Amino acid sequence: MKAIAVEPGAGAPERIELPVPEPAPGEALVRTLRVGVDGTDYEVIDGCHGGVPAGDDRLVLGHEAVGIVEEPNGTDLEAGQYVVPTVRRPPAGVETNDYFERGEPDMAPDGEYVERGIVGAHGFMAEYFTSPADCLVPIPADLAPVGFLVEPISITEKALQHAAASRAAFDWRPESALVLGNGSLGLLTAAMFRTTIGYDRVYCLGRRDRPDPSIDILDELGVTYIDSRETPVSEIADAYEPMDVVYEATGYAKHAFESIDALAPNGVAALLGVPGDWSFEIDGGRLHRELVLHNKAIVGSVNSNRDHFASAVDTLAELPPWLLEAVVTGVYGLEEYDRAFPNATTDERSGDDDTTIKTAVEFSDI
Amino acid sequence: MKAIAVEPGAGAPERIELPVPEPAPGEALVRTLRVGVDGTDYEVIDGCHGGVPAGDDRLVLGHEAVGIVEEPNGTDLEAGQYVVPTVRRPPAGVETNDYFERGEPDMAPDGEYVERGIVGAHGFMAEYFTSPADCLVPIPADLAPVGFLVEPISITEKALQHAAASRAAFDWRPESALVLGNGSLGLLTAAMFRTTIGYDRVYCLGRRDRPDPSIDILDELGVTYIDSRETPVSEIADAYEPMDVVYEATGYAKHAFESIDALAPNGVAALLGVPGDWSFEIDGGRLHRELVLHNKAIVGSVNSNRDHFASAVDTLAELPPWLLEAVVTGVYGLEEYDRAFPNATTDERSGDDDTTIKTAVEFSDI
Repeated sequence: MKAIAVEPGAGAPERIELPVPEPAPGEALVRTLRVGVDGTDYEVIDGCHGGVPAGDDRLVLGHEAVGIVEEPNGTDLEAGQYVVPTVRRPPAGVETNDYFERGEPDMAPDGEYVERGIVGAHGFMAEYFTSPADCLVPIPADLAPVGFLVEPISITEKALQHAAASRAAFDWRPESALVLGNGSLGLLTAAMFRTTIGYDRVYCLGRRDRPDPSIDILDELGVTYIDSRETPVSEIADAYEPMDVVYEATGYAKHAFESIDALAPNGVAALLGVPGDWSFEIDGGRLHRELVLHNKAIVGSVNSNRDHFASAVDTLAELPPWLLEAVVTGVYGLEEYDRAFPNATTDERSGDDDTTIKTAVEFSDI
Repeated sequence: MKAIAVEPGAGAPERIELPVPEPAPGEALVRTLRVGVDGTDYEVIDGCHGGVPAGDDRLVLGHEAVGIVEEPNGTDLEAGQYVVPTVRRPPAGVETNDYFERGEPDMAPDGEYVERGIVGAHGFMAEYFTSPADCLVPIPADLAPVGFLVEPISITEKALQHAAASRAAFDWRPESALVLGNGSLGLLTAAMFRTTIGYDRVYCLGRRDRPDPSIDILDELGVTYIDSRETPVSEIADAYEPMDVVYEATGYAKHAFESIDALAPNGVAALLGVPGDWSFEIDGGRLHRELVLHNKAIVGSVNSNRDHFASAVDTLAELPPWLLEAVVTGVYGLEEYDRAFPNATTDERSGDDDTTIKTAVEFSDI
């Protein structure tokens, strides 16, 4: 079968041939439909995040997949069932551990997990993949074409669940949210705040000029676009309003700390970015005091578990179809898979960065 | 009646005469027994925190009080009932607001509250005070001598409630805690972690040499003392172990950010200090990444509400009597009230800073 793999640091993925995998007991064989591409894929391609399985020299990419059960292999799944796979698995040679047994592999620390398509385990960018049945989340047939959005939405489901938990010791009544970053995850999250969560006042920070398709989406959602070149995060509370929730999806480390100033009293910042080392000066005394005197919280969040995937399926069903169409700017077949990676560094630029929001590779007709 | 008041910035409190207050409808008249002194009092005395009520030139000090109901004045309280008053009240001229109606004045933002003895309202360091009956929390007679510890313990009750809430979205199993600061609040909190909460492994950071009475208390509690001059907070995870909870009570702003490194994966830092402005450099990229990849949280917490006071009464009853005796190093009558303020800057040093942990002024025999 065909697969898309990368030699970390090579700068671009390549198409390779692999045997169709054999499901082990408890695993199903899944025929892959579509697999999304996100910033983490580029970090893996660039070699600054993740890693190949021990003994391999290439990693099959892909952690945002949707597929169809080809062979249930004695599991409870049914052939023809549309499914989305979760990402974390126990490390090689380990059957399970406390985190997986609790259904919370997203809370496992380093060394207690691998991530398919990211670190230590091959991903889903192949015509077939196998997976333990309990790592396959059913999805309705009508959502299958955009099923690769379930994984990124699940990331937000978890982050917002943890953020809300941090405010559960009192009668919190959030009304406003600021999303930092207008990439596909930021747009989906801003859409969730406006539609499925239902905040009246939602803001999204970016650094693009109009006309721009991501800003058009924000306009259509009723989300206020904030240009970071005009209004830095630390000035947003004054220029717009203090925010009950800040959701950081830029990976820009100063945003993590400037979020404290953007928050309203009793607000919470959910951090999702994974920046590299970078030292800079902050007014740490004032920020510390601000956290304390206004009961503010910061919650870091990574990955997501099966429950978050299940919530994400519900969310995906509720998001307006026009939004999903607008966010997914390109789905490319295997013969033109490179168009799904317009930002791969050493490849010829095959996409237009200004109009690309979310891409996917299609492995099999839906 | 006699009261202890301060002209902010004067450097030391003074004894003044005031009329015995008249309880308004819904208020009881309380005869004051003892009132504790803490770091906030010194900040008020120094003029760097808090403020006098509008139209006054002096503030009656004291926010950690225990008293006995002298005149119930038609409220549900009984004469002779021992009580501890909460600290926040609605601003002058305002009967209530959303935060007070919800029983959560501790979550009110600036301008929506005053704090008795701290900002905008006179405190409890007087022979009598009045208070709305619902701001008076009953306390058993046998705890009355140390009832002034209820307020500081309530601060920890709230901070740890909020910290635990932030971890409630998953199956959190904390086993270790680090308290930053070995003042009276740090010692009481370390004692709570060891006894009422029951963690096996508790650490407390200070910067004192042995022999020292606060370190003796930690030894007796089975808490590991860490000298910050030998092991900075950022190195504690390696030198000892990563901590499930960090509780910051130093007001030293770098600790707020170094806590991220001291935390174990999925851990939470509760911040309580109120530092002044101070800019410094941090490795913000690494700290941001650490928060995200290890699901860490930071929760700021200020003040406490009636529920936290009620929990604090229960905690106080459970703490070992030897601990309370060791923490309270001096209770001084009105004629020698200045001995309760050994750190007042312009007063003659009447106490020995190396042996003073917690002091109180006694207004009436128990």
